[in-house]
Amino acid sequence: MSRPAAKTEPRQDASFPARLNAAAAETERLLERLMSDALVDGEIARPARLMESMRYSSLGGGKRLRPFLTVETAALFGVPRERALMAGAAVECIHCYSLVHDDLPAMDNDDLRRGRPTAHKAFDEATAILAGDGLLTFAFDILGRPETHPDAAVRIALVTGLARSAGLGGMVGGQLLDLAAEGRFGRNEAPQGEQGVLTMQAMKTGALLHFSCMAGAILGGAQPDKRDAVSRYGKILGQAFQIADDLLDVEGDAATLGKAAGKDAAHGKATLVDLLGIPGAHARLSALVADAEAALAPFGADAATLTDAARFVAERRA
Amino acid sequence: MSRPAAKTEPRQDASFPARLNAAAAETERLLERLMSDALVDGEIARPARLMESMRYSSLGGGKRLRPFLTVETAALFGVPRERALMAGAAVECIHCYSLVHDDLPAMDNDDLRRGRPTAHKAFDEATAILAGDGLLTFAFDILGRPETHPDAAVRIALVTGLARSAGLGGMVGGQLLDLAAEGRFGRNEAPQGEQGVLTMQAMKTGALLHFSCMAGAILGGAQPDKRDAVSRYGKILGQAFQIADDLLDVEGDAATLGKAAGKDAAHGKATLVDLLGIPGAHARLSALVADAEAALAPFGADAATLTDAARFVAERRA
Repeated sequence: MSRPAAKTEPRQDASFPARLNAAAAETERLLERLMSDALVDGEIARPARLMESMRYSSLGGGKRLRPFLTVETAALFGVPRERALMAGAAVECIHCYSLVHDDLPAMDNDDLRRGRPTAHKAFDEATAILAGDGLLTFAFDILGRPETHPDAAVRIALVTGLARSAGLGGMVGGQLLDLAAEGRFGRNEAPQGEQGVLTMQAMKTGALLHFSCMAGAILGGAQPDKRDAVSRYGKILGQAFQIADDLLDVEGDAATLGKAAGKDAAHGKATLVDLLGIPGAHARLSALVADAEAALAPFGADAATLTDAARFVAERRA
Repeated sequence: MSRPAAKTEPRQDASFPARLNAAAAETERLLERLMSDALVDGEIARPARLMESMRYSSLGGGKRLRPFLTVETAALFGVPRERALMAGAAVECIHCYSLVHDDLPAMDNDDLRRGRPTAHKAFDEATAILAGDGLLTFAFDILGRPETHPDAAVRIALVTGLARSAGLGGMVGGQLLDLAAEGRFGRNEAPQGEQGVLTMQAMKTGALLHFSCMAGAILGGAQPDKRDAVSRYGKILGQAFQIADDLLDVEGDAATLGKAAGKDAAHGKATLVDLLGIPGAHARLSALVADAEAALAPFGADAATLTDAARFVAERRA
């Protein structure tokens, strides 16, 4: 079942879509290989149904924005591409697990994801919960491997960064605040005002996008000034992503999105688009793209693709 | 909120219950402190409801058998107790998350756990799913910290071992096979015969108990022969634990167990007790206790507490 690692190495001058698609294809092949070879204590064990549901939930779709950010940030520091792809694959496992759990009936109760039935519809709720748990756990399995980086201290820095961005104070905490914003747990627990919404979004989607960028800097042993520049860029990118997402929820339609639209309003959830208005949200997005470009200034022309990535995130239609 | 680390250090000649209770109390205090201090990227972020549900699901109960095994195995190799407690706390987070998710309506649908309402009853389903995800992620946060071990290579070995014992090829995979054993996914996916049941149990509960012991050997930098001895002991202990569990399901009652009894028969699930009969299962348990003692022979008198632990696991009434 094992295949050789992907060899595709896009030329530095390849167009943005070509680079994005190349990283997506390589991530897909890597995830497929890693899951096919999943080991336990030296033996191979893969209960068929769990394997199938984990594959369904992580392969065959998605822009793979997070692994792309890791790959492109890592490239700034001369990190071998196959190492960046390993770290990116780990981040993508976390992202995919979060979609599976967020779609569950007890959470957002979505039937559609990337134009296909959600995992609990394609399988069943118990299998979907376990597929999510399996993907979450597998992310740390991937980061633990020497192929990610030969230096254990670097791998541990990735483990800590991923755990913090994905956990209590990051994505998981943000998803709880997101449910709270719908009024589920009563008024007192709902995030209040622009700062409350910004914090909720920074945790729910921002933290993992930020870490996707930081992973490249960690792999590359970046000096503090460069590391701080990547960190600023990652935070700005996360904010832009979420405003674009909120705008899509208002302006998009299910056919283009591959998932339900208009959900925020239906759930009575405050977003930045409510607080800023649609034109105000577009203006904020443009400002964030400019901020992202400014944050990348220390890298000069090398960061052109990451600047494009900020623009892509801000202007995406799906 | 921060408290100094627990100082209790039971004397080597303390009785087995005293040692078990001391490790449980220290684990409880450590988990409480770690969660109170939960950090994200240098800042503290703890959504109140998520924090409360994670605390509810991990504090205030349980024998803490897994951290105890880590502490006692680590003691064989002279590992400082506070390091073993860190690794044990990580394992306990995994154990507690698995209970929360296994109790969910879509899984085993249990209302009672350790004599209290299960997390989704005390809170709600969405919060319970997120509390489980948060605890799972937090386990790796804990293992990443220098307090667990100053050497990053040792911490990474713990991360890999925990991820493999908890994931696809371990606990998560075993839980899927357990549901399959109830016939949920049709006849073809149910584990078949004694070997099928043994594999399912080795994955579902055995893998994490095994790792609880291995964590001590990893922290202690055990030589291969001693490491193998601990590994053999851990596997035997896992088998004994599960047979005792199956016997309790047949012979126990809910009041003593703090959870529902008779569930296996109600779900039509084959267990080793069905395959061996009740007297056969008791005989197998006695043999496993003898095997556990034999596995520990290389450690001589130092391993007396671990021998007691095997007996305790085999003979427990709750």
